[in-house]
Amino acid sequence: MLKDGERLDRLIKEGIDIIQSKSVFSFSLDAVLLADFAKLPKRKNALIIDACSGNGAVAFMMAHKTNAKIYGIEYQEYLADMANRSVQLNHLQHKVQIIHADFKYGDKLFRPDSVDVITCNPPYFSNSEHSRKNQNEAYTLARHEVTITLDDWVRQSSRLLKFGGKLFCVHRPDRVLDIMETMKRYCLLPKRVQFVHPKKNKEANIVLIEAIKNGKSGGMKILPPIIVYDENNNYLDPVRSMLFGEEHNE
Amino acid sequence: MLKDGERLDRLIKEGIDIIQSKSVFSFSLDAVLLADFAKLPKRKNALIIDACSGNGAVAFMMAHKTNAKIYGIEYQEYLADMANRSVQLNHLQHKVQIIHADFKYGDKLFRPDSVDVITCNPPYFSNSEHSRKNQNEAYTLARHEVTITLDDWVRQSSRLLKFGGKLFCVHRPDRVLDIMETMKRYCLLPKRVQFVHPKKNKEANIVLIEAIKNGKSGGMKILPPIIVYDENNNYLDPVRSMLFGEEHNE
Repeated sequence: MLKDGERLDRLIKEGIDIIQSKSVFSFSLDAVLLADFAKLPKRKNALIIDACSGNGAVAFMMAHKTNAKIYGIEYQEYLADMANRSVQLNHLQHKVQIIHADFKYGDKLFRPDSVDVITCNPPYFSNSEHSRKNQNEAYTLARHEVTITLDDWVRQSSRLLKFGGKLFCVHRPDRVLDIMETMKRYCLLPKRVQFVHPKKNKEANIVLIEAIKNGKSGGMKILPPIIVYDENNNYLDPVRSMLFGEEHNE
Repeated sequence: MLKDGERLDRLIKEGIDIIQSKSVFSFSLDAVLLADFAKLPKRKNALIIDACSGNGAVAFMMAHKTNAKIYGIEYQEYLADMANRSVQLNHLQHKVQIIHADFKYGDKLFRPDSVDVITCNPPYFSNSEHSRKNQNEAYTLARHEVTITLDDWVRQSSRLLKFGGKLFCVHRPDRVLDIMETMKRYCLLPKRVQFVHPKKNKEANIVLIEAIKNGKSGGMKILPPIIVYDENNNYLDPVRSMLFGEEHNE
């Protein structure tokens, strides 16, 4: 099932094997944090979409949180194929379905105002930030707003979500104002925000945001910070538990 | 020098006695955090304003950080008088000058585009939040946007600050989006943001924001979180140092 340059990595906590490729795409801590941050409805008929799904890591890591099927939408054909093979490998066809499509036009796949939850780990860098662009095309598309912009995925999320539906996303703190303004423009109200710091005395390098469609203004909460590593570069809880499960806590 | 119901409290770190009144006004941790957060130019001819100065706590706590005089502007006559008596009591006439005036019309006191730094610990609650209003008028004016609104103090700060001048403020996290949008509307770009959590596993209850007039968009930093208390309700650093000075660290 593996193609050239691919390897199998184990999601220890979930007991799922996921196909990755150093040269094309491998998921990062951001995906782990997003999967943990998102609150999913349990019920089987809930409609849950993981947008910008990459190799499906977020969808796989969330599968145990709901009885509903999670639809992962990925624009890059190679990544969607990789994710699909991981679905088969783990016999998760009843839990995760990968769709090779452009989330920007998600309303061609799903009915507007019908979705309960959307998770999104979008490209972080605006397309103008040329200097940081990766030579590798797959990485460039995953990281830069080439095929999908902040405005695109927020607008489309708002269109698809039902009244009171929730968007969970992970992004960079330096764009947090931009993100929240865009959300507000599309009737998505940020409700829970959590900053992630690599160490306790370091600036945040990741932000998690939960927004509610047609939510009431105000009442935004800044959750307790997540600190990833201690002074000796060991994972701290809750990140350690996210990666390895509760039973691996000392 | 003390009037009915007033008491003298010592700012331990600064060695300054400050007049307070339980029934009228006493400064809180927010003032301590703001005074520590603000970066002041050292030079004697810098123009520094502490808006919404209350009993002058922020101005007094910042006095050692600059060779310039700090102008405290306070709307409530009784509080301005209290602050003035603290100035005299501590012989700080050369360091702090209290002006009884409405900061909303600060451009009647200072030339627009002339101020280096403004600090502000404004009323936190919008005037519509009736339910939380304090019966005590002095507290109501200090806490609710009755006489000065978010729009007022941000607009006036922008008017007074010179190009590249800085606004430092303290506020509630649930209004952070509102605050940043207002800042942007008046050409003040948020650059450094710090959230303060009462304990490490609690939501933030205070936010500190530094904004720069005519600053470039983007590049906002979320500083390491400040955690106020440990599990046993003892002050943690850096708050302990802010309150008691470095030599009191164990």
